[in-house]
Amino acid sequence: MKKPNILVSNDDGIEAPGLVNLVSELKKFANVFVSAPYRQQSAVGHSITIFYPIRAHEHYINGEFFGMAVDGTPADAVKIGVLNFYKEVKFDLVVSGINHGSNTAINIIYSGTVSAATEGTILGIPSMAISLNTFEKADFLEPSAMAASLIKDIWENHQLITSKKILLNINIPNVRTEEIKGVIVTKQGKSYWEDSFEVRSDPNGRDYYWLTGKMEILDESEEYDIAAVRKNYISITPLHYDLTDYEVYKEIKNLKFKI
Amino acid sequence: MKKPNILVSNDDGIEAPGLVNLVSELKKFANVFVSAPYRQQSAVGHSITIFYPIRAHEHYINGEFFGMAVDGTPADAVKIGVLNFYKEVKFDLVVSGINHGSNTAINIIYSGTVSAATEGTILGIPSMAISLNTFEKADFLEPSAMAASLIKDIWENHQLITSKKILLNINIPNVRTEEIKGVIVTKQGKSYWEDSFEVRSDPNGRDYYWLTGKMEILDESEEYDIAAVRKNYISITPLHYDLTDYEVYKEIKNLKFKI
Repeated sequence: MKKPNILVSNDDGIEAPGLVNLVSELKKFANVFVSAPYRQQSAVGHSITIFYPIRAHEHYINGEFFGMAVDGTPADAVKIGVLNFYKEVKFDLVVSGINHGSNTAINIIYSGTVSAATEGTILGIPSMAISLNTFEKADFLEPSAMAASLIKDIWENHQLITSKKILLNINIPNVRTEEIKGVIVTKQGKSYWEDSFEVRSDPNGRDYYWLTGKMEILDESEEYDIAAVRKNYISITPLHYDLTDYEVYKEIKNLKFKI
Repeated sequence: MKKPNILVSNDDGIEAPGLVNLVSELKKFANVFVSAPYRQQSAVGHSITIFYPIRAHEHYINGEFFGMAVDGTPADAVKIGVLNFYKEVKFDLVVSGINHGSNTAINIIYSGTVSAATEGTILGIPSMAISLNTFEKADFLEPSAMAASLIKDIWENHQLITSKKILLNINIPNVRTEEIKGVIVTKQGKSYWEDSFEVRSDPNGRDYYWLTGKMEILDESEEYDIAAVRKNYISITPLHYDLTDYEVYKEIKNLKFKI
């Protein structure tokens, strides 16, 4: 089997343990190239930098070239990695992660991790976003081994996915490998944030606002990403970026509007 | 007919003529409240600010309170407008725009204008993003009158849309009102950016990179947003934020994965 060429990015920054550990594991079966933001970029959504130029530098770990650190968003890092830094490479996969924190349900639309993978798909490369379901301090060793093993399985056995340039959003429970109940294909869960803003005053008496919120889940079935990962399944959700609501399209197609 | 309460935001900033003109026109039939970024925020995608607090100030035009200027993203501005600044108001509509530049096809996913409207829908309010199809210098007087007239028509005659909290992405051709061929409901066009990065050197000899690109359109039919607006139709596309690719979901649902 041909060794795949994989571009790795993330939104937690090029030094994040979730990325560094994943890269080590992927190198066991793949040629790995890194292009990632140089600092954390969470909740950037699908941003790209167009009004400013992008800076980048070579990032070294223990004196060895590790990858390109990009002063930009996750989507920027993938775009410039594919089109410029490694333009002589024919990439087989783009992998974004492992993110520290799940990306499920409504959170997907705010996710820089998913955005990096989306950009890979837009560039015509099958892509995956990988996230670990915890916001607590985490060890990425086992999750990285699981993720790499799953990616290897997809590469070697599921050409259906790789040939169609499919975008996968993968969420991994934060438990030991032996506690994983299995891998299931899911749908994006329905949920919403019960948000509010906490108002505080700075030492000069001027107000500032902190977003605080609690996610309310509307689907408890493991058919959906958010419930599946909470029940210790690895969740794989196929995504796309055609945002048309076809059901509503059919309903309103023949309305007459006037200006 | 009840006067609707409308929250207006954008991504071009609270002083942008596209917003200021639209607000004047909307005030002819609605109670209008403004919460918008205080500076331009294009291509921010669906970002929200979580690691930093948000600042905001009251913005005045000719000595009169105009709205809240938010040091944050378009989604931030809508969220804090609804949940904090105007929390005593029951909003009937969120309107984002008028953006200077179209938001069609693949560009939708990078759009701050669409993101502000999406946030409105997430908060349970029927929402619309409005964009003008030109990147040249533009006059927003006529487009604002057209947009307000269309919004009034939707509010008064299309409860199907307002009752279902539908998200609409509206693109207006940059032509005189009499040249508009009509209003059509469309789907998101398929297109891609033929991107590249131009490398330059700063005075100290360090490289920096500018994104440059050309959008390639794959659909020339006016069933699709991008072609419709180019053919001088006002294009209305219903969007949603369920990113699950259901077709692929069915295809890969029964695959067996291993870790």
